[in-house]
Amino acid sequence: MKKQDELVFLPLGGSGEIGMNFNAYGYGPEHDRKWIVVDCGVMFGRETSTPGVDVIMPDIGWLAEQRDNVLGIVATHAHEDHIGAIAPLWPMLRCPVYATPFTARLIEGKLEEAGLLGKVKLREVPVGGKLKLGPFALDFISITHSILEPNLLAIRTPLGVVAHTGDWKLDADPLLGEKTDEAAISKLGDEGVLAVVCDSTNALNPGASGSEIGVRDNLIKLVGTLKGRVAIAAFASNVARLDSAARAAMANGRRLCLVGRSMHKMVDAARETGYLRDLPPLANEEDAAELPPHKVLYLVTGSQGEPRAALARIAENNHPGVFLERGDSVVFSSRVIPGNEIGIFALMNKLAGRGIEVITADAHDVHVSGHPAQGELRQMYQWLRPQIAIPVHGEMRHMTEHARLAKSLQVPEALVPANGQLYRLAPGHAELIDEVPSGRMHMDGRILVAEGEGLAKARRAMAFAGLIVVTLVLDGKGRVAAETGLLTEGMPGSVEDAVREAVDEAARRHNPKKSDAEELRETVRRAARRAAQDAWGKKPVTRVTVIEL
Amino acid sequence: MKKQDELVFLPLGGSGEIGMNFNAYGYGPEHDRKWIVVDCGVMFGRETSTPGVDVIMPDIGWLAEQRDNVLGIVATHAHEDHIGAIAPLWPMLRCPVYATPFTARLIEGKLEEAGLLGKVKLREVPVGGKLKLGPFALDFISITHSILEPNLLAIRTPLGVVAHTGDWKLDADPLLGEKTDEAAISKLGDEGVLAVVCDSTNALNPGASGSEIGVRDNLIKLVGTLKGRVAIAAFASNVARLDSAARAAMANGRRLCLVGRSMHKMVDAARETGYLRDLPPLANEEDAAELPPHKVLYLVTGSQGEPRAALARIAENNHPGVFLERGDSVVFSSRVIPGNEIGIFALMNKLAGRGIEVITADAHDVHVSGHPAQGELRQMYQWLRPQIAIPVHGEMRHMTEHARLAKSLQVPEALVPANGQLYRLAPGHAELIDEVPSGRMHMDGRILVAEGEGLAKARRAMAFAGLIVVTLVLDGKGRVAAETGLLTEGMPGSVEDAVREAVDEAARRHNPKKSDAEELRETVRRAARRAAQDAWGKKPVTRVTVIEL
Repeated sequence: MKKQDELVFLPLGGSGEIGMNFNAYGYGPEHDRKWIVVDCGVMFGRETSTPGVDVIMPDIGWLAEQRDNVLGIVATHAHEDHIGAIAPLWPMLRCPVYATPFTARLIEGKLEEAGLLGKVKLREVPVGGKLKLGPFALDFISITHSILEPNLLAIRTPLGVVAHTGDWKLDADPLLGEKTDEAAISKLGDEGVLAVVCDSTNALNPGASGSEIGVRDNLIKLVGTLKGRVAIAAFASNVARLDSAARAAMANGRRLCLVGRSMHKMVDAARETGYLRDLPPLANEEDAAELPPHKVLYLVTGSQGEPRAALARIAENNHPGVFLERGDSVVFSSRVIPGNEIGIFALMNKLAGRGIEVITADAHDVHVSGHPAQGELRQMYQWLRPQIAIPVHGEMRHMTEHARLAKSLQVPEALVPANGQLYRLAPGHAELIDEVPSGRMHMDGRILVAEGEGLAKARRAMAFAGLIVVTLVLDGKGRVAAETGLLTEGMPGSVEDAVREAVDEAARRHNPKKSDAEELRETVRRAARRAAQDAWGKKPVTRVTVIEL
Repeated sequence: MKKQDELVFLPLGGSGEIGMNFNAYGYGPEHDRKWIVVDCGVMFGRETSTPGVDVIMPDIGWLAEQRDNVLGIVATHAHEDHIGAIAPLWPMLRCPVYATPFTARLIEGKLEEAGLLGKVKLREVPVGGKLKLGPFALDFISITHSILEPNLLAIRTPLGVVAHTGDWKLDADPLLGEKTDEAAISKLGDEGVLAVVCDSTNALNPGASGSEIGVRDNLIKLVGTLKGRVAIAAFASNVARLDSAARAAMANGRRLCLVGRSMHKMVDAARETGYLRDLPPLANEEDAAELPPHKVLYLVTGSQGEPRAALARIAENNHPGVFLERGDSVVFSSRVIPGNEIGIFALMNKLAGRGIEVITADAHDVHVSGHPAQGELRQMYQWLRPQIAIPVHGEMRHMTEHARLAKSLQVPEALVPANGQLYRLAPGHAELIDEVPSGRMHMDGRILVAEGEGLAKARRAMAFAGLIVVTLVLDGKGRVAAETGLLTEGMPGSVEDAVREAVDEAARRHNPKKSDAEELRETVRRAARRAAQDAWGKKPVTRVTVIEL
């Protein structure tokens, strides 16, 4: 066992996917590493691959086994894919949580909902502040993103400095909150940086991501061209966008009305931490409904087509407080998150079918991304000039392109880590030294279940080919003692008939002297599946229950 | 009952969706209309909304009831969403099928696979030919699209001419096949057009779709910059693209090798109908595998991430004949069809993870759409100057924008039809006169099932919340006579425990003097669902079987 101090990096989420960021840094000799965790987020389940799963989070069992050595969770910013798993996973780590005020306020709300508020040591770090955690000394350096208070963390250790970017872009005018502290970042580069652990989301995009100020100007102009009610759909967490919507309303003689629970939650958190002091008075839904159509501007949740969010209900015309009709407009000040296309387009079709004009960011430049395109990545590497580039927060195609870009910028080493890969960053060259158990946990209903348990997979199998359940009743001598029960779900009637025939035939042939209940069960199962395959071309999930009297 | 002759239009598929095009035109008095069907296509099922369904086609039951009056199915071109439902739906109509030679050849192949070859009257119409079907006289006018032999149909009737565009674009140099017969189209406009029934796919896109010649040039250049093996992924039906791949190979000292069954099927159909006469000799997979990497160019199927197609197998490194490795490249000469993002990106991630460079159409202009953007739509309306614009082949958002555009071009009337809406086009103004039963049929396994039967929906419910099956055995007196059987699928163990307890409790409380088997079944069903909801937050599909001894 090595006694030498080492600095190691271990992603347990976010490497290979955009979402559920979870990065651990370890310091010390192998048998007694102290750990800090940077970000602890979720990603959203998909009906395709994980039906019935709302959110997915990293399996952190390996780290939880050494939780006495986990010094804290540090959140870079308040997006769900960075803080959404703190409440559900905290019981496995039971360590303090650190964040700047706005982020801390939102984490607090989540802990409260989870009944953990009194239990978790949640510590505020001032914007631009510092934090000492064992061998780690962290500087919170302000950067820009699509939310308030994004931070680049300078993680100082005796073996070198890691710059962990979090999610970022370079927005010269973010409208609200701090600007990017370019001086601090370039000073960090001058001091010497061992490794940069960096956002890869937009590494395939040339150029730059653009500024919120441009979006504000375009929203003001666009709203000026619209006649009836206007609803802007945007991500609730983008508080600058909300402020821009307020200004677009004001500039065009409209009053802003927020619609959707998360919209209000974000505004409250922003106000409680000192932002939005000069936001004009908002109209509530009742007041807005009384205004003439050209006097109102709604800012609504649900830009991703989420079926329970405000915009979906407005489109279905069953929102309790907001009514749109022919001549009104919906502006999508948002991007289409890959995988959400069908739901978003279905929503747009409903609106268009009701004569409501649908205006997208494509056509009117009313959205900018919060992640660095290649031009911004280049700038970051020029500032920091690290020994090692470590792309995270991306799918493989983003991370490999990011690594290629870093190499082209003369960064000597570029890793493309996978979740569970433990890299030594120092001393010596970066090296993969271990692979630890990793994976995903599904929030399945209210229960946290390991992906490996296969519940979602089992349900998917039923979604594809339906289900057959056969019930056999045997008497004390192992003879079939009642009519065979057959139940199918999601299968055509003619196939059910064929299966029934096959099952009855198999039961009839059963000879308790030659085969026992277990053999009968297997015979019947095979007969049922074969009959379905022959009649239908699909093999349903097939279960046989034997009841012995 | 009206005895006056009328010209009517009835879409049964393709209005409100991109796919499963099926348009019927009727002529005659209401009680004795003669019908022609233009196109008869499928759309593909989605795991999200229709798990276990490969293809979806229109429910044509209403038209099938009058099949003696259906004079024929006319195919505009050979894409699946225009001809894919001919074989499965033909038995409901039993009418002749008409198409130009390349399209007819591909329909023939499908009929052969379905065992219908001898039964269906399949009639070839020459390119640029004419066809008389009862009161309808059709001119096949050549236009351009992303396949050989696309046709605009001029449908002449005593009450006016309908121009049915099929799928189209304006490609000044389509490379193979006929150019757009602009003279014939503008002459049609000069003669006077009652209605244009027109492709809406790209009605949201400004500008023009671009030409295959540009793609060819860019492919030749791009392949010249690549070092190892190159695989181009493209839609098999785009024969011009295949020819361009051959030229990109030749220009760069490579040999072209086709990979994927549908690629070969298309080349065969093209050759049999007189195209691709000067295609350089192709390498087969064995020969190609022997060539040095920089001497081979594969053209492969699977650009949409289809799991069983060539490219998916190549990415998984389990294709029997094609091997790619670090330093090789895959060029996506295709677009991402909405809904396929996640599958395509997963495929790209696999390739990127193996060190294979992934090159997309976004970055290198190696794909153009086959559908008209706004500039091309404008040109078409300028040529035809119809009385009525009828957008089809689009979602609602495309069709409403298309209608808006037509109105802005001074077309007096613009309809936005829904499937099942029967419009009178003449005499008099266009008018919705009836709504006939319409809907979708699912090819579920090998069985055609009405969407309304709810099989896919039932399976989806199981995918979301799993399944509980309870089996109760009652004796002759209605008493519980054996241990209650419980079987669950896709549910956490702790929830199963809670359900078992609730079910056992309900069975224990059963008093055959107070409630019968049916009441017991319902009591148990409710107890099981309530227990699951309490423990899990989801209500599984719950079925209770009662076996009476």
